[in-house]
Amino acid sequence: MKEQERYMDLLKEQMAYKEAIGLMAWDMRTKAPIKGMDNRAEVIGVLSQKVHQLQTSEEMKHLIESLKGRFPDSVTEKALLESEEDFERTSKIPIEEYRDYVTLQSKAEAVWGKAKDESDFASFQPYLEKLVEYNQTFAEYWGYKNHPYDALLHNYEPGITVKKLDQVFPDLKAALTELLNKIKKADEQPDPSILRGHFPKEQQAKFSKEILARMGYDFEAGRLDETVHPFAIGLNVNDVRVTTKYDEEDFRTAVFGTIHEGGHALYEQNISPELSFTPLATGTSMGIHESQSLFWENFVARSESFWQNHYHLFQKYAPAHFKDVPLTDFFKAVNEVKPSYIRIEADELTYCLHIMIRYELEKALISGEIKVKDLPLLWNEKMRDYLGITPRNDAEGVLQDIHWAGGDFGYFPSYALGYMYAAQFNASIRKELDVDRIIQAGEFNRIKQWLASNIHRYGKMKKPLEILEDVTKERLNPKYLVDYLSQKYQHIYKF
Amino acid sequence: MKEQERYMDLLKEQMAYKEAIGLMAWDMRTKAPIKGMDNRAEVIGVLSQKVHQLQTSEEMKHLIESLKGRFPDSVTEKALLESEEDFERTSKIPIEEYRDYVTLQSKAEAVWGKAKDESDFASFQPYLEKLVEYNQTFAEYWGYKNHPYDALLHNYEPGITVKKLDQVFPDLKAALTELLNKIKKADEQPDPSILRGHFPKEQQAKFSKEILARMGYDFEAGRLDETVHPFAIGLNVNDVRVTTKYDEEDFRTAVFGTIHEGGHALYEQNISPELSFTPLATGTSMGIHESQSLFWENFVARSESFWQNHYHLFQKYAPAHFKDVPLTDFFKAVNEVKPSYIRIEADELTYCLHIMIRYELEKALISGEIKVKDLPLLWNEKMRDYLGITPRNDAEGVLQDIHWAGGDFGYFPSYALGYMYAAQFNASIRKELDVDRIIQAGEFNRIKQWLASNIHRYGKMKKPLEILEDVTKERLNPKYLVDYLSQKYQHIYKF
Repeated sequence: MKEQERYMDLLKEQMAYKEAIGLMAWDMRTKAPIKGMDNRAEVIGVLSQKVHQLQTSEEMKHLIESLKGRFPDSVTEKALLESEEDFERTSKIPIEEYRDYVTLQSKAEAVWGKAKDESDFASFQPYLEKLVEYNQTFAEYWGYKNHPYDALLHNYEPGITVKKLDQVFPDLKAALTELLNKIKKADEQPDPSILRGHFPKEQQAKFSKEILARMGYDFEAGRLDETVHPFAIGLNVNDVRVTTKYDEEDFRTAVFGTIHEGGHALYEQNISPELSFTPLATGTSMGIHESQSLFWENFVARSESFWQNHYHLFQKYAPAHFKDVPLTDFFKAVNEVKPSYIRIEADELTYCLHIMIRYELEKALISGEIKVKDLPLLWNEKMRDYLGITPRNDAEGVLQDIHWAGGDFGYFPSYALGYMYAAQFNASIRKELDVDRIIQAGEFNRIKQWLASNIHRYGKMKKPLEILEDVTKERLNPKYLVDYLSQKYQHIYKF
Repeated sequence: MKEQERYMDLLKEQMAYKEAIGLMAWDMRTKAPIKGMDNRAEVIGVLSQKVHQLQTSEEMKHLIESLKGRFPDSVTEKALLESEEDFERTSKIPIEEYRDYVTLQSKAEAVWGKAKDESDFASFQPYLEKLVEYNQTFAEYWGYKNHPYDALLHNYEPGITVKKLDQVFPDLKAALTELLNKIKKADEQPDPSILRGHFPKEQQAKFSKEILARMGYDFEAGRLDETVHPFAIGLNVNDVRVTTKYDEEDFRTAVFGTIHEGGHALYEQNISPELSFTPLATGTSMGIHESQSLFWENFVARSESFWQNHYHLFQKYAPAHFKDVPLTDFFKAVNEVKPSYIRIEADELTYCLHIMIRYELEKALISGEIKVKDLPLLWNEKMRDYLGITPRNDAEGVLQDIHWAGGDFGYFPSYALGYMYAAQFNASIRKELDVDRIIQAGEFNRIKQWLASNIHRYGKMKKPLEILEDVTKERLNPKYLVDYLSQKYQHIYKF
């Protein structure tokens, strides 16, 4: 018993550091004065090192060995498995190497910011080369069965491998491309110009907040702020914060962005409180997390049912000219499909194509099949191949995302996985609930309850593919996403 | 050299926890969702325990013993003296006893809040009795020469003793009481009713921010927020935040409150950066801190020179009727003297009388001369004696302040000391600078520079009385405060 208590104390200490680091990150992105950043970075460094020390200490190793298996099927047992994995993965990287890598990351992010502004890939190239090299080395330290990229995928989506992705992505690509071609040729085309017009951000915020509240986001256990890059962050189960970005000339940024982040936040707010102060008290993977945000953003808030109920409320806050925009035109316009250079501006259909480009490049970089210096050319080739457009410069091409500058190789696939998971969950919930009628009636609480009891509450008690299979009784299957998109766009584009 | 590095690493770790705890405290008072508070309290508990462990570890003890004296007159040496004192004071209290005390504090604060709301001293009494008992015990642990209260004073104002306070307070009391009587009988009486009128908080905020900026408060190294109880907090030298409270029917709350907190903030923003990540990087004592806030609030912002320059700016933001209020009447009204029940609403003259009441009661409680149960009666007696008014209930009497509920015995005298220090600094700066002309010209930067180079930059490199004596070439002397107040009120009340 003493060992179990001691283990729980160490977990609590670890979670205390993580809450502190989380609050500091939130603060730096929302409120913190610019001049305090250097000091703050050092403080975060100290606390991160404490987490590292805890995860890799001899005492932790001993406690894991001694306690594992003694509490089958309990929270403690699952936490021990997490701790064991943290221990193994973290201690495989020599501490000096890891420190140098962290320093490189923050330098590379700064260089990337400037390189992007100036569309200057060459200045970023040496940093990216080193980051790729580190990730290749880490993949070797961590080990893998078939492909070094598997070791990186594991950081974001345990259970997902190159093999699995290569089973689903080609079919998905073929189906999406086919759909895209049909849409391009369709007679009926939405008119997005009707969505334009100055929409003051205070008004956008009022609408967004009302929707968030209807979704079941608990404002007494969270808050909404404004940032340059929107995000959601769970400091603890009762403190899950959302941020959004306002574009006064295009309400879609804030409205769909807030709902998206709200989907992430609902996940974190509805994790079972018994997991608090353990590493299990968070979403189980990036992909499952993304499935929740995308479910609310697209399957709910971009549906016709949603706008049938909420267009009136929207018009209450929107500029006067929306009074003259018919619901049908509005619904079609917010669902316009149009290949874009920028991933985060992509529509529901082309989004996964953006992800596949990144996946293929990352995989080939890590295996050494391609070189960093060739990225700009390869990127543009793939854009032509997948989307039929060619970026005019690297800023809107290979330099657009921060992920690589942060060394986050293996992260991008989670976005497409999240989409496929969301479509599978969508099919499952529809077997049990009349979702369209529920959305029309604005009874979001029933949807939230379903997601909470089937997905959210487990936190990391279940692995991502375990959740997927428990809920959908099926393995990863891109068919659901293809079916959903086909039906949706057939209805809108009438092809 | 290795030992010195190790010591600096431990200090850095300690300061990292303190910055984290500070940010959490700021967040809880400004932004944090209510439901996350329980979790947050546990996190703060974990981090505070880490600070405690660091301060009292065998390693720290060894490092102090080994390093002390090896770097005379250096930052390291001064830091070692701070660490030594932390070690000695902290390790004298058994850890279990300290933990119980911390638990009692937070319970007592909650009980006090309710007791104050209901003006029910009896419900708070048992908690206060225990808190007094703990403080009596701590005083014995810490040790003292003459009076147990000295041991508590040392926490807030090292160097100050009962003996010293008993040398200055009686004279101060006599002089203030005499002044108060003259003022009461004076023919000329200010009319504070002219200050009333609805003043939207956005407008108050604009004026306050402009003044803060003119004072030299660096908004890139801080920010201004709204809270129920205003405060300033230094997270690090480049992140010093201020909060204020707005009363739309009485602008004085926010305007003078913001300037007051701004005075605290200037102190923290101007501490020498070479002290960063040591326990020296903060104000040297509560009293010296209060001297800075009071200097700006009263000696600057309640002066006639200040309003000669800033009344026009004030009128720009203030409600229209201020256009008809002459400057002289305005200046007199913001300097009205009127005995009040509530300390934080007191004017410049009666403020120190409120403090002396608390000092006398605290001192007698700690020495055991009086009992907690007798406090309400004694409080009201002293209010009659010092201020000539009797609280109508305990909510506006003995229950008004949170300090005792937090166990902060020995803190109150700092407020009066700060006043006396401020008056002494005021006399010193006037020997070097033409302060009235500078204030009239709005050249606050020259005042800020003087304070920064004489006081702020030292942080805790100098003890409070060392600063006082170095700057003023004199010991603690209430004469300066009496002279300042006499001149000011003679001018206003024409007695």
